[in-house]
Formats: sequence, C-alpha cells, structure tokens
Amino acid sequence: MDIGRFYKRAGQAPGEILEKESAAGVTDVRLIRQSGKILDNPDIESFNLKGEQKEGWIWIDVIGLSDIKKVKDVGEKIELHSLILEDILNEGHLPKFEFSEDYKLFILKYPYFDKEKDELKLDHVVLYLKDNLIATFQEGSENHYESMLKKLENPQSTGKSTNAEYLFYRVIDFTIDQYFLIMEYLRNTIESTEDILMEEPNKNQIHVIQLIKKRIVILRKQVNFLKASLGKLLSKEVVFQDESIRMYFTDVYDHIVHVAEMLETAKDMQVALLELNISNVNNSMNRVMKTLTIVATIFIPLTFIAGIYGMNFKYMPELGWEWGYPAILSLMLILAVFMVLYIRRKGWF
Amino acid sequence: MDIGRFYKRAGQAPGEILEKESAAGVTDVRLIRQSGKILDNPDIESFNLKGEQKEGWIWIDVIGLSDIKKVKDVGEKIELHSLILEDILNEGHLPKFEFSEDYKLFILKYPYFDKEKDELKLDHVVLYLKDNLIATFQEGSENHYESMLKKLENPQSTGKSTNAEYLFYRVIDFTIDQYFLIMEYLRNTIESTEDILMEEPNKNQIHVIQLIKKRIVILRKQVNFLKASLGKLLSKEVVFQDESIRMYFTDVYDHIVHVAEMLETAKDMQVALLELNISNVNNSMNRVMKTLTIVATIFIPLTFIAGIYGMNFKYMPELGWEWGYPAILSLMLILAVFMVLYIRRKGWF
Amino acid sequence: MDIGRFYKRAGQAPGEILEKESAAGVTDVRLIRQSGKILDNPDIESFNLKGEQKEGWIWIDVIGLSDIKKVKDVGEKIELHSLILEDILNEGHLPKFEFSEDYKLFILKYPYFDKEKDELKLDHVVLYLKDNLIATFQEGSENHYESMLKKLENPQSTGKSTNAEYLFYRVIDFTIDQYFLIMEYLRNTIESTEDILMEEPNKNQIHVIQLIKKRIVILRKQVNFLKASLGKLLSKEVVFQDESIRMYFTDVYDHIVHVAEMLETAKDMQVALLELNISNVNNSMNRVMKTLTIVATIFIPLTFIAGIYGMNFKYMPELGWEWGYPAILSLMLILAVFMVLYIRRKGWF
Amino acid sequence: MDIGRFYKRAGQAPGEILEKESAAGVTDVRLIRQSGKILDNPDIESFNLKGEQKEGWIWIDVIGLSDIKKVKDVGEKIELHSLILEDILNEGHLPKFEFSEDYKLFILKYPYFDKEKDELKLDHVVLYLKDNLIATFQEGSENHYESMLKKLENPQSTGKSTNAEYLFYRVIDFTIDQYFLIMEYLRNTIESTEDILMEEPNKNQIHVIQLIKKRIVILRKQVNFLKASLGKLLSKEVVFQDESIRMYFTDVYDHIVHVAEMLETAKDMQVALLELNISNVNNSMNRVMKTLTIVATIFIPLTFIAGIYGMNFKYMPELGWEWGYPAILSLMLILAVFMVLYIRRKGWF
Amino acid sequence: MDIGRFYKRAGQAPGEILEKESAAGVTDVRLIRQSGKILDNPDIESFNLKGEQKEGWIWIDVIGLSDIKKVKDVGEKIELHSLILEDILNEGHLPKFEFSEDYKLFILKYPYFDKEKDELKLDHVVLYLKDNLIATFQEGSENHYESMLKKLENPQSTGKSTNAEYLFYRVIDFTIDQYFLIMEYLRNTIESTEDILMEEPNKNQIHVIQLIKKRIVILRKQVNFLKASLGKLLSKEVVFQDESIRMYFTDVYDHIVHVAEMLETAKDMQVALLELNISNVNNSMNRVMKTLTIVATIFIPLTFIAGIYGMNFKYMPELGWEWGYPAILSLMLILAVFMVLYIRRKGWF
Repeated sequence: MDIGRFYKRAGQAPGEILEKESAAGVTDVRLIRQSGKILDNPDIESFNLKGEQKEGWIWIDVIGLSDIKKVKDVGEKIELHSLILEDILNEGHLPKFEFSEDYKLFILKYPYFDKEKDELKLDHVVLYLKDNLIATFQEGSENHYESMLKKLENPQSTGKSTNAEYLFYRVIDFTIDQYFLIMEYLRNTIESTEDILMEEPNKNQIHVIQLIKKRIVILRKQVNFLKASLGKLLSKEVVFQDESIRMYFTDVYDHIVHVAEMLETAKDMQVALLELNISNVNNSMNRVMKTLTIVATIFIPLTFIAGIYGMNFKYMPELGWEWGYPAILSLMLILAVFMVLYIRRKGWF
Repeated sequence: MDIGRFYKRAGQAPGEILEKESAAGVTDVRLIRQSGKILDNPDIESFNLKGEQKEGWIWIDVIGLSDIKKVKDVGEKIELHSLILEDILNEGHLPKFEFSEDYKLFILKYPYFDKEKDELKLDHVVLYLKDNLIATFQEGSENHYESMLKKLENPQSTGKSTNAEYLFYRVIDFTIDQYFLIMEYLRNTIESTEDILMEEPNKNQIHVIQLIKKRIVILRKQVNFLKASLGKLLSKEVVFQDESIRMYFTDVYDHIVHVAEMLETAKDMQVALLELNISNVNNSMNRVMKTLTIVATIFIPLTFIAGIYGMNFKYMPELGWEWGYPAILSLMLILAVFMVLYIRRKGWF
Repeated sequence: MDIGRFYKRAGQAPGEILEKESAAGVTDVRLIRQSGKILDNPDIESFNLKGEQKEGWIWIDVIGLSDIKKVKDVGEKIELHSLILEDILNEGHLPKFEFSEDYKLFILKYPYFDKEKDELKLDHVVLYLKDNLIATFQEGSENHYESMLKKLENPQSTGKSTNAEYLFYRVIDFTIDQYFLIMEYLRNTIESTEDILMEEPNKNQIHVIQLIKKRIVILRKQVNFLKASLGKLLSKEVVFQDESIRMYFTDVYDHIVHVAEMLETAKDMQVALLELNISNVNNSMNRVMKTLTIVATIFIPLTFIAGIYGMNFKYMPELGWEWGYPAILSLMLILAVFMVLYIRRKGWF
Repeated sequence: MDIGRFYKRAGQAPGEILEKESAAGVTDVRLIRQSGKILDNPDIESFNLKGEQKEGWIWIDVIGLSDIKKVKDVGEKIELHSLILEDILNEGHLPKFEFSEDYKLFILKYPYFDKEKDELKLDHVVLYLKDNLIATFQEGSENHYESMLKKLENPQSTGKSTNAEYLFYRVIDFTIDQYFLIMEYLRNTIESTEDILMEEPNKNQIHVIQLIKKRIVILRKQVNFLKASLGKLLSKEVVFQDESIRMYFTDVYDHIVHVAEMLETAKDMQVALLELNISNVNNSMNRVMKTLTIVATIFIPLTFIAGIYGMNFKYMPELGWEWGYPAILSLMLILAVFMVLYIRRKGWF
Repeated sequence: MDIGRFYKRAGQAPGEILEKESAAGVTDVRLIRQSGKILDNPDIESFNLKGEQKEGWIWIDVIGLSDIKKVKDVGEKIELHSLILEDILNEGHLPKFEFSEDYKLFILKYPYFDKEKDELKLDHVVLYLKDNLIATFQEGSENHYESMLKKLENPQSTGKSTNAEYLFYRVIDFTIDQYFLIMEYLRNTIESTEDILMEEPNKNQIHVIQLIKKRIVILRKQVNFLKASLGKLLSKEVVFQDESIRMYFTDVYDHIVHVAEMLETAKDMQVALLELNISNVNNSMNRVMKTLTIVATIFIPLTFIAGIYGMNFKYMPELGWEWGYPAILSLMLILAVFMVLYIRRKGWF
C-alpha cells in the first residue's frame, strides 16, 4: 500500500488509467479451473471464459499490479467497469464491498510482516465475483493464496468447493485470518515492551511505543472498514446463489469483530505502556534528584564546618586546642550519621 | 481463555477440527436428569436422548474441553453444526447469542479469581438449548455449576425447574452473578490502592494501577458483548416455549447493565488513581527539591563567608581583630536564621 | 446505598429473600388516606385495601428496609411480584421504570448530604402505583417526604391531589428537586476549591478534587439512568388514567435534563480544577528551582574566587599587595551585582 | 442567568409562583402593533387582545422579570399555562421548543459581553406565539430587540412583516446572530492569548485559558440545546400558518450549526493553548535547570582544585614552585574553556 | 475564507445584501458553452440564457466575489433566491448541499497551500445547477478550474460531457481531489517533524505541532460537512436527469471518506508527535539533571576532603607526614573512580 499514490489522480478524468507508469513491475496472470487445471500466464485475448465457466468455477488470479496494460486487458476480458478498474489500480483504496445484480466486489488488504525490514505491510487485494467466475487482483509479487489453494486441491478437504461463492468466501476468510497473526505479533511486541519497562525502568521506550501506536492506527482503519464492508455483505439486499453461504459469512463477521476487539485492547495496552513509560522517566529523574540531594545535604554542611576552621583569624581558640581536630572530625561524623538517618527515615533510599 | 490460541486456525478449512492437540487434557461428561439422576461419563454412543427427553429436561454437562474427540462425539450426538463445535473449542470466543427455530446458543465467560496466582480467569462456557435438552461446555477442570446444581436438587428450592429454558436461564444468571463477585474484588483492590496512595504518598503504585486497568479492559470487553447478547436474546424475534421466562431474562439484563455501570465507575476510579499517583510522584520530587534547596540556600552563602576569611592576603584587618572570629560566627548565625525564616514564610516546610 | 450488598445474592435462587439479615434495623409503615387520616404502623394483616381505595387514593409509606419480614408482609398484601420485592430490597439497584397493564414501578435514589460526615448519601426509594394505591419504600430511618406531605395536607395547596397518579408524580418531582440542591452544593465546593487554587497556589488540592470527581461519577450514573427511566415513562406505550399528567412528567423530564447538563458542566469544571492544580504544583516546583539556582549562581563563583586566594602557593603576588583584599572584595561585589541583574532580566523574580 | 436560583423551587408545588421575591426589580411592558403604534406600560387589565389582533400582529414585549406579579398578570391575560409561566420565571432554564395546536414556545438565551465587568452574560428570553399575538419575556433591564425593532419600523425594510410567525423568526434569528458576535470575541481572546504564549513564553496564562474554557463550556451547553430546539421546530409535526417561513428557519438552523462548529474549533484551540502553556512552563523550568547546571559544572571542579592547594600539608612540592600559581590558574582556565565547549556542543545555550 | 466576516450580518434583515463593501475587489464573469466558445465578462443584462441552454450545457463561472453588485446581477439573471445569494457572499459558510425540484446547490471550499505565506487557504466555492445551466462562484482572483476546463475542451477526453450534471460532478470531484494534495502536504509536514524529533531530540517542536493541529482542525470541519453533504446528495430523494451519474457521485463519496480517514490518521499522528515532543523535553531535562548530579556527586565530597586539610588546627598529625599529600590525593582519586563506577552502574551515561 502506498498512500502517497492516490493523490496523483487529482485532475485526471475519472476512469482514465495512468499508462505511463506501467513499465516498472511484473504482473502474473493465473487461470485455475475447478478441475484443478492451472494455466500460468495464458493468452488472455484468445480465452473463452463463457465456455470455461460451464465446467464449474473458474478463478483468474492476477498477481502484481504493476503492468497496468495487462491488468487492463484482464479487466476488459471480464468486462469490468472502468471505475472498478480504477479501484483495483488504486493500491491505497480502503476496504469496500460493492454489489449489483451482476457482480460482487470486495476490496481489502492482505496484512503481513516483512520480517527483514520489520515492517507491517498491507497488500491491496480486490475480489470480483460474477456468476461462476472469480477474479482476484493482488498487489506485490507474491501469491498470498498459494497455501490456501493447496488445501482446495486436496481431495479430502472439507470445503464444499463446487461454487464460486464459496471460493469468494474462502479468500476473504483466509485474508481475515491473517489479521489474527498480525494481532498475535502486535501482542508479543506489546508484552515484551511491557517486560522491558518493568525490568529496566531506566530505558526510555517511547519510540517503540510510538511504533506500536502507528501500527494500531493503520490496522484500526482497515479493520473498521472491513467490518462495515462485511456488515453490508450480510445485509438482506445482497442475494447469493446458495443462501447457505450466509452462515459462513456470519462466521467471518464474528472473526473481524473479534479482531476489532483485540485492536481496542491493544490500544488500551499501548496507552498503558505510555503511562508506564512516563512514570519510568519521572522515576528515573526522581532518583537522580534524590542522589544529588543526598550528596549535597550531607557534604555541603560538612564543607561549611571545614571552611570555618580554615579561616585565618588570629584569635580562634579552638585551633589551639590539642583535641580540636579530632573533636571537629567527630562532630562531622555525628552530623553525617544524623543526616543519613534523617534521609533514610524519609524513605529516599 | 487463551487468546493466543485462536489464530492457529488461520489457514484451516472452516469447521475442520484440530485433532492432534486432543491428547493433553481430560474431558468429563455428565448427564443430569430432571429426576435428579446423575450419570458420570456415560457411554455417549449408546445413549438415547430422544427417549430421555420425554421424562422432563435433560442436562449434558461437559467439563473440560481438552479431549477434542470426546467433545466432538457429544456434539455429533446432539447434532451440533460444525461451526458451533468450532465456537465451543475456540476458547477465546467473545460472548454471543445465536438462535434458530431449532436451537438457542449462548457463549459467555465464567469469571473467577485464581487466588494462588492472583490472576483473573475467564473460563469459556457454551450453552446449547434444543427442546428439552440443555448442553453446557465448560473450559477448565472444575465444574463451576456444582453449587447451583445442589440448589436445584433441593426439593424446597423456589425455582420452577420443570423446563429446560428455566435451566438455561439459571446457568446464565448464575454466571453473571459471578461478575458481581469480581467487581467486588476489583472495588476492594481499588480502594486499598487508594488508601495506600493517601497514606504513603511516597510509594509509586503505577504497577498496581496498570494491573487494575488491564482487568477492567478485559472485563469491559466481556460485559459489553454479554449485554449485546442478552439484548438480542430479549428481542421479539426470539420465541420461548414458556414466554413468562422473558421476565427473568429482563432481570438478568438489568444485572449485566448494573455490572457494566460498575465497570464504568471502576474505570473512572482507576483514572483517578492514576492522577493521584502522578500527583504523589510530583509531590515527592517537589519535597526532594525543597530539601536540596533549603540546605543549599542556607549553607552555600555561609561557606562563601568562611571562604573569604580563609584567603591568605597579607593585609586583611579583620583577621587581626580580637573579636573578629566571634563576630563572623554571629553574622553567619544571623544570616542562617534569616534564611530559615524566609524559607518558612514561603511555606516550604 | 450499599453497593457491596448486591453480590451477596450470587448463587441464590431468583426471588428468594435473605431473611436471616432482617433483625438489624427497624421498618415503619404508615398509611395515609386522601382524607388526611394517617395511620402509623397499622396492622397490615387485617387491612382491607380494596375497600379503602374507593374513598380516594391511599398511600402506604414504608420507611426503612431493614425489617425484611415486615417489608415482605406489605409486599404480599399489595400483591407484589417476587422480583419487584427483590428490587425493593436490593438497595444498590439502579433507577428504573417498569410498567404493565396493572402497575407502574419507579426505582430511584433520594440524594442528600450527611453534613456531619460530609458524605453524599443516596437513599434507595421505590414507588409502586396500582389503581388508586401508591406504595413507597424508603431506605434509611428518616421519612424524606414529610415536608412534601405537609404541603399536600394544606387545603390551599395548588396541587390537584385527587388522583394517585398525581401523588406518584409529586414524589418523583420532589426527589428530583433534591438533585438541584446537591448540584448547588457541588457547585459551591467546586467554586471554593477554585478560589483556594487561585489564592493559595502552594496548596495541593488533589484530594478535594478527587472527592468532587467521585461524587460527579456517582451522580452521573444515577442521573443518566433516571433520564432514561423518565424517557421510558413518557413513551406512548405507557397509559395514564388522566392523560393531562403527562405534561407534568414532561416538566420533570426537563428538570432531570437540566441536572444532567449541570453535571456535565461540573465535570468540565472538575477537569479544569485538576489542570489548575497541576499547574500550581509545577509552578511551585519552578519557584523552588529558581531560588536554588539564584543562590547557587551567585555564590558558587564567588566561593571559587575566595578559594583561589586561599591557596598556599609561595609566589602569589596579589596576596602581598596592600589593596589586594579590598580589590578582590570589590570584584566579588561587582560579579554578584552583575549576576543579580542578569537573573532579573531573565524575569526570574 | 442565575443557575443558583433554580433549586429554590425544591419542595414547592409545581406551578406555584414565589411571590415574596417580587419586590426587588422593575418590569416594563410594551405593546407594539404592526401599524407601528407602541404603548409603554399599558394597563394590562383593561386590554382587549382579541380585538387588537384583527388589525395585524401584536407584540407584547416584557422587559425585566423581577416584578413577578406583573409578569403573572401579563401571563394570565394571554392565558399562559402555569408551567409555562414557571419556565419564564426560571431564569436558568435551558433552551427549549415546545408546541401544541394553539401555541409555540421558544426559550433561549440572549448572549452579550458586559465589557465593564468583562463577563459573559446570558439573558433569559422566552418567546410565545399564539395566532397573531407574539409575547417576549426578557431578563434584565435592557431591551435587547430595540435595534431590531427600528429596522422593522423602517418602511424600506425588506422584511415581509405581515405575520406574527415572521416576527417570531426575526427575534430568534436576531438572538442567534448575537452568538456570532460572542464567538468573534472569544476568537480574539484565544488569538491574543496565543500571541502572548508565543512571544512571552515565561508568562503563565493558565488563568486566562481556564476562563476561556469556562465560557466555551457555558456556550456549548446553550448552543447544543438551541440546535436541538431548532431541529424540533423544523420537524414536520410543527405546522406554520405560512409554510414558506420554514425556509427561513432552515437558514437559522444553518447558523446555529455554524456556531456549534465554531465552538468545537474554539474548544480545540483552547486545548492547544493549554498544551502550549504546559510546554512553556516546562521550557522555563528547563532553562532554569540549565543555568544552574552550567554554573555548577564549571565552578564546582575549579573550586575543588583551589581547595587542594589550600590544604596545609607540609610537603606539597607544587606550592614551592615559582610558576605553580600561574600554572594552576592556566589549568583552571583550560578546564573552564573545555567545560564551556562541552556544554555548548550539547546545545544548552 | 474569513470567519470573522460572518458576524457582521448580525442585525441585518435576512436576504439583505451589504452593498457598501462592494468597491474593494474585482469580479470576473465567464460564460462557457458546451461548444467550447468562451465569453469573458459578457454583458449580463442583455444575455438570453434560455436560448443558450438549448444548444447544450452552459457554464457561468464567476471568479472573485468582491464586486457584490456584479454577483448580485448574475444572481438575478439566473433567478437565485435571496438566501442563496446570501450564502454565496458569506465566504465562511460551511459545506452544504441543498436541493429542490428546480435546482441543486453545493457549497464547498477549494483548498490549496499559499506557499509564499506557508498558509492553508480555503476558497469559498458555490455550485448552482438548474436544468442545463451550471453556475459556479469562486472566492479569490484565481480561476481554480482552469486546468479542469482544458481537459474538458480536449476532444479525446474520456468525459461524457454532454450534460450539465456531469459538469456539476466534475467540479465537485476536482475540488475534492485537491484535498488529497493537501493531505499529502500535511503528511510530509508530519513526517519531517517526526524526523526532527527523532534526530534532534533537543529541539522543541511545539509550535510546528500546534500548527499541524490547527490545520487538521480546520480541514476536519470542512471534510465532515462535505461528507454529510455528499451523503445527502446521494439520498434517494435527490433526482438526477441521468441516473447513471449516481455511480460517479458514489465514487466521489468514497474519496471524501478516504480523506476523512486520512485526517483521522493525521490526527493520531499529531497526538503522537506531541507525546514524542513532551518525551524529548523531559529527556532533555533529565540529561541536564544527570550532568549536574554527576559533577556534584563527584566533586562535592572531594572538596570536602580538601576542606578538612585546609583547616588551621595546630595539632593535625597528617599535615606533618611526608606522604600525607600524595596519600590524600590518592584517596581522592580512588573516591572519584568509585563514584564514577557507581554512577555508570546506575546507567546514567
């Protein structure tokens, strides 16, 4: 997701595609049939989708959105409206569900952690369902649904995969399950930060806490829109070929509600971390001040006494006393002990 | 409740059960008849539920959810949908009420304090009601409804226990009553923390306050979802065999509203504790600074005076005066007294 | 109100009354007829309510809820449902309005300040209206409606007191009027605290502010539920014998909305007090630090100079100069004056 | 507006008027006819309103609410319900719109700044519309609608002043326009406070900021209730003689929404001022601490060195060296320069 | 936008225009026909709009609102209601959508950055659509839709520009696209501020953060009202000549929702900046305090020791020892090393 990109459209006519940028990346197209036959990068032009669909569902999986021309070709083949195509290519688009009598469109983000860069990534994914055809458009070069596909191919799979709607559900469900993984990761970060704040109260963790906050903010935006989109999908206006699928979407909705709750908890915990960190910083300062005060409170009066007997008055009788020096040293010792006791009673160390 | 568990399902087909983990714990099944006859761990396979139900309500109490195979067997016997079974086994599931013409499903958490570990525990409980059959599934090895059952068996009990719906109500009511106990415990913690903050303002209670906050956050999530679930249960779409039970559920709803209010109050009090703690920390720092300033303000000028008469100039007439030394000592004393008075007028001690 | 009490019911069958505790206090029953005839502690058993009601309204006023047996007897006489009786005895119950074709039930709190203990008290009051019978149940040994009753008895009273519904309204109206007195008290506390914070900025008022906050939190809970209850009472589903009473309840509703607004204002003011207090504490610390810095900034350099001429080097030409001592003293004076000017320009005192 | 007054009613029968207080102030009654004829303090008793109304609208303008008897007389003449009269005399009443088939009642506050006392004043104004009669009741001795009236009398006025409803609208519109003046005043205060905080960061502006906050709180309460009242006035249940007036009320509603938005902005700005002030106070403390640290860091080590050579050991070879003194002075100088450089690199001054 | 202006209307009759101020600026009127023919400052009086409209849409573009007379003339020509004219001239008006059977009115702000003054500007723009006539009124001397117009004239433009409604959409869409540019600018400011706070933690960025906050507050107000206005435009009550335009407005609505979300994120980030800044200021103070404490903790005790041996007692045996001086120096060194180690273990530097 590149939030910065969106605004470049400003001033363009709606539905107009920015073809100049299409050279940069690669776009792979995959065609998967219910029978299990997979075609990599087929010749889109000569493809007969109508004929295909009779043999069960067909899945067009577009991986990478950089080759805008190719994406556009696929879009034309499956008769996408130009505004939908625009939504597909706008990688910062918020989650949305849109439907008409003909088609269902679901936009969401596939979240994962890029562990090398320690970065939260949100890959733009668009699902388009029309009769028995499902088309998915994924940002990034990796196919996020590889492992899910393997399960589908497995003949013992419990999934009743005879319907494109079920596939539509599976892809959404699989994507939302990723949010649990992300939440788990976030929870670990929060807990380890809490441990550091508890055990090493001198370490200022403000930057880590801010990073956590940023991630919560980003995820919350996604999850809230996802929740609204799924709620819309579940409304009675939306008609499914097989209405029993509705129960599965209700289940997905429960999941996203759970993720939303986890995020709220994470938010509360992040605020608690911030409070803890502030408390630590204040305590650390407090300890520094106490050390200074203890040292100063003990030694400044003693130094003053030493200063008195360092004066050069001619007539200072104590200076001539034989026991003057040890007496003064003893006085100083008594004073110091008294000071230490006084400070200790105040509970400073 | 193990929040961490949920996400393991990611990538699994929906309704698929993770059987590999089933070895760890134990699951006890109990069959209680209205007549009072109790069967521990009966042979589920050979059991004739339909016949049993004619003789009044029948309660299948499943304690412990570790033996997934056993739970699954019970589920199959009472014809649970695979998604409900999944909800039963997902111990982090949020409270929910679900109903169809056939069944009513209530998911909630039984809260209690593990006093040894000083930990707030929330045990996952699922209630399933179908005709005159009620099934409960409890997380953990302890039967939380033992004492409630004893009351039911008591012939003088005021409960009109002739109906499974009434039992359904009693289990929910009993569980929600536990939240009052938890709230009482929380209130005590808050009040004792407040007492400490009032009486020992030097003690930083941030960790205790954070713990209180955490518990409020966890409980709030549960209670909010409980409230929504009970609200749904009370809606007119839900049909009961005996409609007079509705008044009892309204009563339960009042209770959960009360718990929710108590939590809001607890939240406000926790914020007040935090403010009090910050105030204490600041005051403590203030006192330290004042001590330092008092000591420094009195002795630094005196030391300076002593320093002057410690200089080795040849021509310092005061040094030769007979009354120089006592005069300077008196001057110092006057200065010190003046300083003390000045500070006292400023109200520093 | 004893919040702690509620949870004791946990585990009890619903509607079951805890009779063991009934010994502690006293319960007075009063029977007031429209004619003005008052019976104190009548023999409830032998009483013929049906006959009485024909002669106009009749008011059963139960003062003190400690003698549970007596309360129960009254309840049985006027045919209260066991759940209503439970609500009467649960002194921590939140405000609620409940109605059926037969009866109207209003639960609220009578607020007052116990000036001796400087405590905000909320006495549990339950109103039960059925045909021309009104029953009130009051917590505490004092009859809160004594003065209101005197007004009613007054023949010149403008109240058209021919209907039990009007009496029902008058009791609620009178109770809600008490909230204005409480708000007035709260406003005075807030304003006097503000005055102290303005005039004696050294005094930390955190404990007073926290107490104000606590009271606002408690009152807010009551007032919000009262508002909702009155809103429900005003809904079209509720039928009155004399519909013109509705206008009076609308007036009461306006009052509680006003109280709610006053509470919001009080909340805002309390937050402002907190900010002011924090500002005062910071300023006080600031002043302490400035004093320390001024003293140190002036005297530490001077002491250093004195230290230099206290050194015992053999060859220190200044020491031999006749004007060395006065010169050094002058230098110190100039330095001190310069320092004072520098500090003053910085605006520190 | 005297918030304190309201509670005095507690215990009074509803609709009962407190006549004892009526001696204090003056109440002026003015009768304005559409023809432009104005009667000051007419004899209310002998007045024939019905006859008057046939000749176009008639406006009864009551200025000052202190002479309760007079207000009551007017009220009786125009057949006000006793509860409406109570609302008129309750000067702390919140804005409200009330209507029946017969009449329309609008309660609001006329806001203005008493520049002498630098106080925000809210004068209670009640509008009562019945057929072609409009009655206004204003708190305070000043007639706030004098200038508006002048405009009406002006024959070139664009106002189509043939209808009492239009007059009703004009008074409300004129009153709400005053809120813009108040907002402007508030905005100026906020901006000038911001300027002071920017340019004189040593000045603590907490009291000014608190005053701004207080005013926002008071205004927000009024404006929110005004918005709700106007919304109610615009609902379809309210019937106007001339429905084209609705467009004008929509315009007024837009204005009050605008004021509400301005208040939200003012609130945000006030919070920003608070943050800025805290930042200033902290910075000021920071600067003080830095000064102290710089002085101490430079001179304490130097004083120590001087202290060493002030010791009276017999065998201290340096003391006898001819160049000892200048060498030590140079060492001190180097040390001081090094310290200054170190501190400057840290960016402390 | 000049918020201050609005209130000047106070006291004016509604719909009355303030003509006195009309001398100041310039107002350009442009008439654009679908055919591409553009007339600059045509003679409005003699213009036949009805005839023109038959030849396709016609666009009257009024640039600059200072010449009130001219604006009024245009308004009269196209038969604007006086309240609409007032809205056009009130440059602080909030975004609003208004419609009747005859016309559609859209008020919004065109946002841009005045880079020279580094100021966020919001130019008041009013769109008025009636049959095939569209009129736009823009504040400021610049024509903001110049570049959009160029695109329209371009024959290869994808826009189906045969309908005034489409033009109405394009102007709104183009204006809302500007908000993305502003958000981008804001995001850059936030990120660069964050970088400064990370890399130069000594620099207090409070003024920059406050400026960001102010801009967010201003934009949020606009965007919220824009969202509500577009929502109203999309409601079923609004009828379009060509209903297929609705899909385009849905798209615009999605955009403004996206902007609103970006603003929420920006708000969260701004709060994070504030927290970071506070943390930096505290850390900076902490470092200063540590430096002071380190210096004082090491040198004050050493100075005290030196002070002891600076005393002038006759009988101080150490002073006579040959190795006294080096021994004491060594003791001091050991003490200093110990202190440094102690401080280092505490993690202070």
